[in-house]
Amino acid sequence: MDFDESSLPRTRVRDALSSHARPGACLVKGWVRTVRAGKNVAFLAVNDGSCLDSLQAVVDSSLQNYPEIRKIGTGACIAVRGELVPSPAQGQAMELQVQQLEILGEADPQYPLQKKRHSFEYLRSIAHLRVRSNTFGAVFRMRSALSFAVHQFFRERGFLYVHTPIITANDCEGAGEMFRVTTLDPQAPPLNNGRIDWSQDFFGERTGLTVSGQLQGESFATAFSDIYTFGPTFRAENSNTSRHAAEFWMIEPEMAFADLTENCRVAADFLRYLCQFSLEECADDLKFFDARIEKGLIDKLENLADAEFATLSYTDAVKELQACGEQFEFPVEWGCDLQSEHERFLTEKIVDGPLFVTDYPRQIKAFYMRSNDDGKTVAAMDCLVPRVGEIIGGSQREERHDVLVQRMIEAGIAPESLGWFLDLRRWGSCPHAGFGLGFERFLMYVTGMSNIRDVIPFPRTTGNAAF
Amino acid sequence: MDFDESSLPRTRVRDALSSHARPGACLVKGWVRTVRAGKNVAFLAVNDGSCLDSLQAVVDSSLQNYPEIRKIGTGACIAVRGELVPSPAQGQAMELQVQQLEILGEADPQYPLQKKRHSFEYLRSIAHLRVRSNTFGAVFRMRSALSFAVHQFFRERGFLYVHTPIITANDCEGAGEMFRVTTLDPQAPPLNNGRIDWSQDFFGERTGLTVSGQLQGESFATAFSDIYTFGPTFRAENSNTSRHAAEFWMIEPEMAFADLTENCRVAADFLRYLCQFSLEECADDLKFFDARIEKGLIDKLENLADAEFATLSYTDAVKELQACGEQFEFPVEWGCDLQSEHERFLTEKIVDGPLFVTDYPRQIKAFYMRSNDDGKTVAAMDCLVPRVGEIIGGSQREERHDVLVQRMIEAGIAPESLGWFLDLRRWGSCPHAGFGLGFERFLMYVTGMSNIRDVIPFPRTTGNAAF
Repeated sequence: MDFDESSLPRTRVRDALSSHARPGACLVKGWVRTVRAGKNVAFLAVNDGSCLDSLQAVVDSSLQNYPEIRKIGTGACIAVRGELVPSPAQGQAMELQVQQLEILGEADPQYPLQKKRHSFEYLRSIAHLRVRSNTFGAVFRMRSALSFAVHQFFRERGFLYVHTPIITANDCEGAGEMFRVTTLDPQAPPLNNGRIDWSQDFFGERTGLTVSGQLQGESFATAFSDIYTFGPTFRAENSNTSRHAAEFWMIEPEMAFADLTENCRVAADFLRYLCQFSLEECADDLKFFDARIEKGLIDKLENLADAEFATLSYTDAVKELQACGEQFEFPVEWGCDLQSEHERFLTEKIVDGPLFVTDYPRQIKAFYMRSNDDGKTVAAMDCLVPRVGEIIGGSQREERHDVLVQRMIEAGIAPESLGWFLDLRRWGSCPHAGFGLGFERFLMYVTGMSNIRDVIPFPRTTGNAAF
Repeated sequence: MDFDESSLPRTRVRDALSSHARPGACLVKGWVRTVRAGKNVAFLAVNDGSCLDSLQAVVDSSLQNYPEIRKIGTGACIAVRGELVPSPAQGQAMELQVQQLEILGEADPQYPLQKKRHSFEYLRSIAHLRVRSNTFGAVFRMRSALSFAVHQFFRERGFLYVHTPIITANDCEGAGEMFRVTTLDPQAPPLNNGRIDWSQDFFGERTGLTVSGQLQGESFATAFSDIYTFGPTFRAENSNTSRHAAEFWMIEPEMAFADLTENCRVAADFLRYLCQFSLEECADDLKFFDARIEKGLIDKLENLADAEFATLSYTDAVKELQACGEQFEFPVEWGCDLQSEHERFLTEKIVDGPLFVTDYPRQIKAFYMRSNDDGKTVAAMDCLVPRVGEIIGGSQREERHDVLVQRMIEAGIAPESLGWFLDLRRWGSCPHAGFGLGFERFLMYVTGMSNIRDVIPFPRTTGNAAF
């Protein structure tokens, strides 16, 4: 008898603990979460990351290597072979009666994840190991499951997935500060009349990391009708908050023939779908978050999964905020951008549910958003949800060549610098719309984790690119 | 009657042309590929990117705006509403008898995609429009479909998807040259003793774009057992070939408890799955590639989908190549890296099918590959396929702390610079293995496209970051 999987395939802990598990011979491999070892019997909780729970392995002292087994430390990696049997203990359906145990990798008492609770801040300093904890196991299982849900949602609806470029020479994709990407000698860059000669850089021009795939997504939407991106985006902003990271993943659908109403409809369907998927596919992890991280989380998700989304124009939203009698830190007047406090008041107090605010003043929105006939607003929308505020931003795009050129000039963007983007309006233009969902923002919403650093495997923030 | 989709939802061309399509009222929106307009009737081929084929819209001169319709140019965007009926013409099941036509966006005769065939080289210069051509429509539908296949393959097998970081401070992830990521003033960077003071850069140290997510993937594999990455990776190499891009997407599974044999088994399953998925889900696009791009393509994929994969050690492969009597440009001897000509000879002539070459000399392979007991080789594998050569590279990883430290020192890597990576061997280490598939390399294989620039939406290569 040995641990070769050709004779007995490895069983994942999730399968061993599932209601479909059958008693019988079983081989499990994983990491020891806790050990209680006595003279006659030892109990080891074995976790392999396939689910939140660990499998209890019961080891009798008759095993030849029992003296070593008694010394196994938290964090060790082991292979256990034996009989899977219904467990007499409470809280677990099955346990493993071990016939053979092999220590694959020891863990000494310096192992940084001992049983005691650690702060999330400390765990960030060991991001390579924190994934072996309950909380981060659950976070990254949900991140994986929801990534799949994103793809499945769009595939079911006939959207094409497009990988828009990470390195870009467009410096006007969005509002964000960009990182520079270069291979020039930093110590002695080539100069031309005393200025850096970017024509000698790798791409023959100055390049940076993308802040959005939308512009390139629009090119694909005018060929495939319905497309989406799902990839990393970047902001070189020195903002050391719990909601900002320098590198994060964004989902950006773009739909030919869609107007603002259709855009809102798809965004609402998308959020409902992701909530429903979480509830169905990640039930155990959600129970954990509900109990340990955010009380009422499951109710919140069930509500959103069934919610009707309200719609309110920016102009009406401003009126409501001015009339509500609430004292805000930032005063509200038509033309100002809504602050987080305003957004949360709208969705939590005025509507008490998810809400689209539409038709914002043009001067506070991006150049590519479609001008409304009133001459003052654009066909933009932000989706606000209770407890978070803005979670999605989008717009109908300006499809009229002359209007777009005018807006670019107003925004200080040389039209010739985005000639290819204007071409999409020159030949075969059509009404179209799209939106962006910051994937981490949604993960924070769905797990209750309050710091973006705790939903990204190896977060990049000001002063931190560790691991 | 209007074009509002609330009264009649838009039908995608794929659905209108499918064998399940029912005659009746139908609204289609898309781009005009060809126009034949006479005095009494006009035929417009409408494509919306949902499939290769266009829907024929038949317009009678009795329509009020027929004079304008006659002037519609190739590339215009239109909405057509009418009756979907069985087509009397050959080669199409259904056609649309138009009752109403609206021109959403004109296209003048300067539209760069006229009916005549264009070279791929020319089309690269209009990457924002080439997606409206048959070839690139098919390429990017397959790219989207196969992206989904990747996720589905791993999800079905219980692998966790992880987003490894794009920006990294590790400078030894792989063999490739790295792009620098910075926000320092290029003209006047901060100096310390005459050298660039990287501590003042955004992340407080020197950072670049990742060349592989493997090292971070290993951290996740020692928590979740089976994981994979699928994201962009970068090479700042000045190689202007048809097979190299500066930015490309890579798939990297990593499996705790797997050895080299299991690694090869999963890699073979993965390639077979992707071929089978292509054959089932992309049949029309594959027919196009088989007819226009690579004769015999479908046979090739059917063969790989069913193939047994041979295995040959590097040492035996060298013997075979030395004994075969073939004159190679590069002579073969034990210790040298296999060249493309050798790889193709092995898979095409010696094996005549897909092949794993295993156990390469340690001095030509990366520091993290597991040392074999012979002291000379490492547990590496390359997967070779006919017509392409190497398509996958992988290895069992060195899980022994002391051996890995020794290998790092030999490779000139300071062990303390990758302390976190060594930690994975310090606590709860286990045998593990993984491999990498360059997604574009596989797309070239499956479409027959011979230039990597033609399977990436907006390729980044030396001197080119356009769009």
